[in-house]
Amino acid sequence: MFLEIVHAEGLSHLSYIFGDGGKAAVIDPRRDCKIYADIANSRGARITHIFETHCHEDFVSGALELARRTGAEIYHGHALAFRYGTGVREGETFDLGNLSLKVIETPGHTPESICLTLSDRVYSERPVAVFTGDTLFIGDAGRTDLFPAMRDELVEKLYDSLHRKIMPLGDHVIIYPAHGEGSVCAKKPASREFSTLGFERQSNPMLARSRKDFIQHNLWEEHHAPPYFWQMQKFNREGIPLVAKLPEPKPENAENFAAAIDQHGLLVLDVRSPEAFAGAHIPDSLSIPLDRFSLMAGWFLPYDRTIGLVAERAEDAAKARLFLMRMGFDNASMYLAGGMTAWTGAGKSFASIPTVDAEELRRRIAIREDLLVLDVRSRTEYAEIPSDPSQNTWIGDLPRQLNALPRDKKIVAFCSNGQRAIIAASLLQQANFRRVEVYLGSDKAYKALQISKKAA
Amino acid sequence: MFLEIVHAEGLSHLSYIFGDGGKAAVIDPRRDCKIYADIANSRGARITHIFETHCHEDFVSGALELARRTGAEIYHGHALAFRYGTGVREGETFDLGNLSLKVIETPGHTPESICLTLSDRVYSERPVAVFTGDTLFIGDAGRTDLFPAMRDELVEKLYDSLHRKIMPLGDHVIIYPAHGEGSVCAKKPASREFSTLGFERQSNPMLARSRKDFIQHNLWEEHHAPPYFWQMQKFNREGIPLVAKLPEPKPENAENFAAAIDQHGLLVLDVRSPEAFAGAHIPDSLSIPLDRFSLMAGWFLPYDRTIGLVAERAEDAAKARLFLMRMGFDNASMYLAGGMTAWTGAGKSFASIPTVDAEELRRRIAIREDLLVLDVRSRTEYAEIPSDPSQNTWIGDLPRQLNALPRDKKIVAFCSNGQRAIIAASLLQQANFRRVEVYLGSDKAYKALQISKKAA
Amino acid sequence: MFLEIVHAEGLSHLSYIFGDGGKAAVIDPRRDCKIYADIANSRGARITHIFETHCHEDFVSGALELARRTGAEIYHGHALAFRYGTGVREGETFDLGNLSLKVIETPGHTPESICLTLSDRVYSERPVAVFTGDTLFIGDAGRTDLFPAMRDELVEKLYDSLHRKIMPLGDHVIIYPAHGEGSVCAKKPASREFSTLGFERQSNPMLARSRKDFIQHNLWEEHHAPPYFWQMQKFNREGIPLVAKLPEPKPENAENFAAAIDQHGLLVLDVRSPEAFAGAHIPDSLSIPLDRFSLMAGWFLPYDRTIGLVAERAEDAAKARLFLMRMGFDNASMYLAGGMTAWTGAGKSFASIPTVDAEELRRRIAIREDLLVLDVRSRTEYAEIPSDPSQNTWIGDLPRQLNALPRDKKIVAFCSNGQRAIIAASLLQQANFRRVEVYLGSDKAYKALQISKKAA
Amino acid sequence: MFLEIVHAEGLSHLSYIFGDGGKAAVIDPRRDCKIYADIANSRGARITHIFETHCHEDFVSGALELARRTGAEIYHGHALAFRYGTGVREGETFDLGNLSLKVIETPGHTPESICLTLSDRVYSERPVAVFTGDTLFIGDAGRTDLFPAMRDELVEKLYDSLHRKIMPLGDHVIIYPAHGEGSVCAKKPASREFSTLGFERQSNPMLARSRKDFIQHNLWEEHHAPPYFWQMQKFNREGIPLVAKLPEPKPENAENFAAAIDQHGLLVLDVRSPEAFAGAHIPDSLSIPLDRFSLMAGWFLPYDRTIGLVAERAEDAAKARLFLMRMGFDNASMYLAGGMTAWTGAGKSFASIPTVDAEELRRRIAIREDLLVLDVRSRTEYAEIPSDPSQNTWIGDLPRQLNALPRDKKIVAFCSNGQRAIIAASLLQQANFRRVEVYLGSDKAYKALQISKKAA
Repeated sequence: MFLEIVHAEGLSHLSYIFGDGGKAAVIDPRRDCKIYADIANSRGARITHIFETHCHEDFVSGALELARRTGAEIYHGHALAFRYGTGVREGETFDLGNLSLKVIETPGHTPESICLTLSDRVYSERPVAVFTGDTLFIGDAGRTDLFPAMRDELVEKLYDSLHRKIMPLGDHVIIYPAHGEGSVCAKKPASREFSTLGFERQSNPMLARSRKDFIQHNLWEEHHAPPYFWQMQKFNREGIPLVAKLPEPKPENAENFAAAIDQHGLLVLDVRSPEAFAGAHIPDSLSIPLDRFSLMAGWFLPYDRTIGLVAERAEDAAKARLFLMRMGFDNASMYLAGGMTAWTGAGKSFASIPTVDAEELRRRIAIREDLLVLDVRSRTEYAEIPSDPSQNTWIGDLPRQLNALPRDKKIVAFCSNGQRAIIAASLLQQANFRRVEVYLGSDKAYKALQISKKAA
Repeated sequence: MFLEIVHAEGLSHLSYIFGDGGKAAVIDPRRDCKIYADIANSRGARITHIFETHCHEDFVSGALELARRTGAEIYHGHALAFRYGTGVREGETFDLGNLSLKVIETPGHTPESICLTLSDRVYSERPVAVFTGDTLFIGDAGRTDLFPAMRDELVEKLYDSLHRKIMPLGDHVIIYPAHGEGSVCAKKPASREFSTLGFERQSNPMLARSRKDFIQHNLWEEHHAPPYFWQMQKFNREGIPLVAKLPEPKPENAENFAAAIDQHGLLVLDVRSPEAFAGAHIPDSLSIPLDRFSLMAGWFLPYDRTIGLVAERAEDAAKARLFLMRMGFDNASMYLAGGMTAWTGAGKSFASIPTVDAEELRRRIAIREDLLVLDVRSRTEYAEIPSDPSQNTWIGDLPRQLNALPRDKKIVAFCSNGQRAIIAASLLQQANFRRVEVYLGSDKAYKALQISKKAA
Repeated sequence: MFLEIVHAEGLSHLSYIFGDGGKAAVIDPRRDCKIYADIANSRGARITHIFETHCHEDFVSGALELARRTGAEIYHGHALAFRYGTGVREGETFDLGNLSLKVIETPGHTPESICLTLSDRVYSERPVAVFTGDTLFIGDAGRTDLFPAMRDELVEKLYDSLHRKIMPLGDHVIIYPAHGEGSVCAKKPASREFSTLGFERQSNPMLARSRKDFIQHNLWEEHHAPPYFWQMQKFNREGIPLVAKLPEPKPENAENFAAAIDQHGLLVLDVRSPEAFAGAHIPDSLSIPLDRFSLMAGWFLPYDRTIGLVAERAEDAAKARLFLMRMGFDNASMYLAGGMTAWTGAGKSFASIPTVDAEELRRRIAIREDLLVLDVRSRTEYAEIPSDPSQNTWIGDLPRQLNALPRDKKIVAFCSNGQRAIIAASLLQQANFRRVEVYLGSDKAYKALQISKKAA
Repeated sequence: MFLEIVHAEGLSHLSYIFGDGGKAAVIDPRRDCKIYADIANSRGARITHIFETHCHEDFVSGALELARRTGAEIYHGHALAFRYGTGVREGETFDLGNLSLKVIETPGHTPESICLTLSDRVYSERPVAVFTGDTLFIGDAGRTDLFPAMRDELVEKLYDSLHRKIMPLGDHVIIYPAHGEGSVCAKKPASREFSTLGFERQSNPMLARSRKDFIQHNLWEEHHAPPYFWQMQKFNREGIPLVAKLPEPKPENAENFAAAIDQHGLLVLDVRSPEAFAGAHIPDSLSIPLDRFSLMAGWFLPYDRTIGLVAERAEDAAKARLFLMRMGFDNASMYLAGGMTAWTGAGKSFASIPTVDAEELRRRIAIREDLLVLDVRSRTEYAEIPSDPSQNTWIGDLPRQLNALPRDKKIVAFCSNGQRAIIAASLLQQANFRRVEVYLGSDKAYKALQISKKAA
């Protein structure tokens, strides 16, 4: 028996391939799915089963493409209509060699969510592990806001799925969720990728809540649902073009890249670090640092405009394109060959953004300089570590709040590590705000400095 | 927090690297240890701690080399004298960021064996996992025959370590042992690499035994201890040359290879498949197929003779050399460039061994052909699936039993899949037995055929 | 300016990618063509031009697939009808940055063969190199037998193309041909992959011949044209399915593999070494060792039967499949998971072939044992190093000569290194010859032994 | 016969490995020399000969380490004293299979420079290629200023070596030099890596000069010799520590990194892009962008201070360390884990540098803003494309010219693509110049804009 975790870097997505006796199954495959076939081959196994724990809203499933590649069957919960695959119900089992999978229906995160228990029948019929999808994370539980019309119902169902279906499997059961730290689908999952029901029972705050408390908390808590979620759900229920058929982004020199901007309205997406973007960037480009891609890109990108990438190097452009593809954005058609050096070397104009460190920001505020600190962290973060005096507008809401911002004032974009601040600064520049600066630093560092200086 | 399992292919050895907050620890590193430094670097962490759960007898530890490379400290159980590192005692703890390790002394497999519990203090001080070394495997427990003078004592200690120290940690605790399936250190561990104390409590046959039964069973059970075990223990207590300083085996053409055999008594070690060895091999060479290396090589190889490798291709020679190095055999000085094709192409003489399939073997026995089926499986395997009429001599004992075999009879070497049979056949040819054949097939297949034919 | 040589391992095919100023061109791309796009990307260049020096007969061109992937234009000689691309004529030039290509028409190997000169206009308009396709090799010239109806005419044209078109370019010009050592398209090219017109003028025996002598020699010389040549020409003129859409061979266990043989007439293609095939193989399988694939596979494989692969390991099966694909054989649907060990372990019957070394063969012939040495080398090889007493039947002709062979006699297959001999032995076994053996050794070694023994 | 070119990225250094008959030779190996052994192994060959065409001044030779690894002999010109290896003389030959090497003494670049001709004796005793070291480049010839006391003599010898020793080998001979484009050892070599003596005869400007003209030109021409050249010569004559024994730079978090700066005077070397450095960098750090490393690092780095690296990612830090090591700088002991994001996230202060594009610079000069354009290109570049009004100080001379610069004026650093300008800006900031800016753009683009605006 083998089991391997496959990560989708940039999405904090965890998928699983495992097998025995020459057969293999995959849980929640990512869109670039060749890797599963390669692993199976290296294990001398054929992929025969693909399971979707639920209709994913944050990435494009590779189930259809993997099925076409391998001939495997696709299975998902029966309680939602898909254009492909087979709906499964409570108690259905699937055998691969000595390994056995059993479906448990766990509605809550979505109406048709399922979990799958894994047994090693050489030792016991009882499960040794459970694939929990977006129902139970390590240190967290799934969100329940994605079907707004059913929210009340789903919250209750999630509580019941957790406490009546999953926890009774036993403390000894290892859990394999669909996401780790840094996912848009969970609020505060652990950075640790291994746990058991027993350990979660003792330490997962969401499991410690009473039914009433759990429901109240979930209905109250803030969740962000970027616009692409609805597109993902559609793709994942209906299907999406095969990756194998997508053209690759072409390297273009500065002249051609500039022409594409001027003549075809190319959307320039700059995935470099905040420092590099601040130093020099193509005017009106959108900054989304590669490290923040999975959490942010879906908020600001359209599906219907051609995208041109600016990256530190060709590998980063390729990575950005992969991340985009995993979210169904198949519209990155080119990247700037040679990066910004090629652009500046061709004598093209560029923009820059002044950067501010913690000490300097504190100093300016201390002398009451006339500036607006635009804090683009979430309400929750803001509540935990206030950045007063400032205005808090969650980065995802910024595009719709631009008109409410003062055009005459200097604005310093602020977040927890500069990555969302640089996005905000790029959005402000796009909207013709002229006095934009960016704070490169953390909220914690700023707070610490504030306190130490006050004390001094 | 991150945790990665590092395999030492060919030894079924599992080692672990994990860390948090920029620091990392390694448990039971393998000798080719650059990989740990690479993983740590990719995680932005420094290796600060190296733990040896016990003095390994089946592979050379990389602790010293890794310590020299990284500046980390080495820790091991205090109850055995090492020439390096620091002895630790029950309850000592080590922190890396939010992660905490705690020593539990678990004598039994060796007098100084320790286990280490792992806590994620963001969530709980209670352990979420335990590194069990050779004390507890998945589906099995450690062997207790390696300190013969202390055997009685160690068996009892092992029982107590398991039931008083490890199991009380709780059903929810994940276990990370030092070996998986196919190790010489365990008898029947699971092929599965994930489990918990709770699942083991329910399904591990060694944990189900009463104290008395456990002791009786362990004292009775058959274990094989290849000669190199004692060398390993010495290396691991005293240190061994750094891998970085070892010369690599050189490719030599057929002429030079033949000259090394004739003039310098080169020991030819052929790591090709049983079929290829049977088809043609250098006279007097020793066959140990690469797939069987970890379990078998230590039985037949000397530390003091120069070894020349014959492999299907250069990568296989490199792999064989790596496997040898992991067992402290640093005496592979050359390999045959171009493999057997180069040898035969140079017009050199070769030997071959007739191969027999299940049907043919059954037929011959049925007509009472005058042959000896030499079954080189273990006593236990022989007891489970008898291969009558035959003689059972465990492959490890064969070199000392050669004189007892008839020289005039045709001998067909027999095992469970041809790999030990071909080793046996090569040993017989080395000892000038002239009528040697090899059964390529499994014991199960042979048995099935025997039964079906009798029924017919 | 950059230039890289891309090899198609197993076909001795050399292709080229080069470029300047952000553009790149490819000469004679192989079918698995992603590599050219990757190289171009790493150089910050777009592939804009693809040239076919001629309609290849020994491999499937990747021109169409690469064009679809990159948007590049395809160019070939105008004197043959293709279903795609643009015909070019003498003197047409193509610029990529400072690099310039110029077409010279060089009929001979095929009616529409072209060569392309390369100039670096930073330094000179004169060419620094020439891509010679199959017109001029290093140490050899193209063959002229592939359009039998036009053979006389093509021989003369080749002479003229060489002496009036290519050689006048100047001694200083580097040559980049489409094949190296071990190609079916050349007889005796050098193993060296670098040369110039000046060095060839001095040392290439084909260039030293007078017009008359050249023509006579070419009309006389023996060339083998495997059946798949005509299929290749058709594919390359009309197009072939995209690699991206081909299913991959599936690993199948011994039971399924056996069922496919029994029930669906699966053709078993064994790509292991001669020694391994001799030791044990699936009955009636065809042996073509991976090292000999490019030269031999096309002679014995049909396009219309499903192929099952047996290899030493999964990577070798993948390599065999790649080699097949490069020759347009898209019918390898499965491979035996676990190789022969899985087959024998399942108790399946196998066949073997006794192996003979040089000493033993000489001994048997010396004592006039009743055997037929079946020498499957070419007539030319046989003439150079006779293997008397023996019968010479070129391996490619063997399938049609089987009826002429004696069924009652022991037959020892013989060649220059065992690779063709094992193919022959497998063909004989398929045809129910029962007393087949194989000589593993070289013709030279055998000859040397014969001489030394006679002298003694 | 095989031949492969091995590049030392970042140094524009070309080395060669080739062989035949199971033996291989290496010309001018780089310090990280495992690659040669790997190539040889993959070709089934042993490295038996290592040649140094001369005592390199711009990189550390790997000859000694490769010899220790493989047992090969080292050969170099006899006319300089080395502490290792064997001196060779005109006409000495070395055979490897059918391949033959012959020494020709070619003093000029250094007193003991040699070239080696390569013959393929299967075809001819005449050479097909020549390894020209630093004597003849593609499009250029070696420099003669590195032994100042012998300069007059060496210039004449170089002319004679080129015209009496190398060119007479014949137009058809392929040349393999020790450097390509972007080397400090050549002024204007071609970007093309393939040429012949015949093509060079026609197009290499240095070969077109008369003896008198050649000598005058070489004595007149500007060459820069960074301080590390003398250290390299010493290392290469006397030996240097083995790479295998060097410790690797450790990742350090922002706290530890800052402590190393404050307490141990760590020299911070920032290898990120000019844009990123301009955006934010650790105060007083030295900028040398990775793309410019080989040409620039040797000018500004000491051998006796500990270096801490700041890079975009860990791979870049590893690459910088490799580049440093190739120049004998073994003093990079740590790198900033997590890069600048970790630094800013920890609330550390940083500096930045305003960036200026071509349009803006032109505008400022047009309105006669009070600024100094500090042009750090070479005299030759400055002469070709003047950047008036400005001051020209070659970047290599800047550290010694700082006192001559005005401290009260705004200074805009200017070069051909921003890479040297950012180095200059970092040097100015280190020296407490407070009003430093950097022009990101090319000299050509600036010139073009200047002309077009004047015209308008």
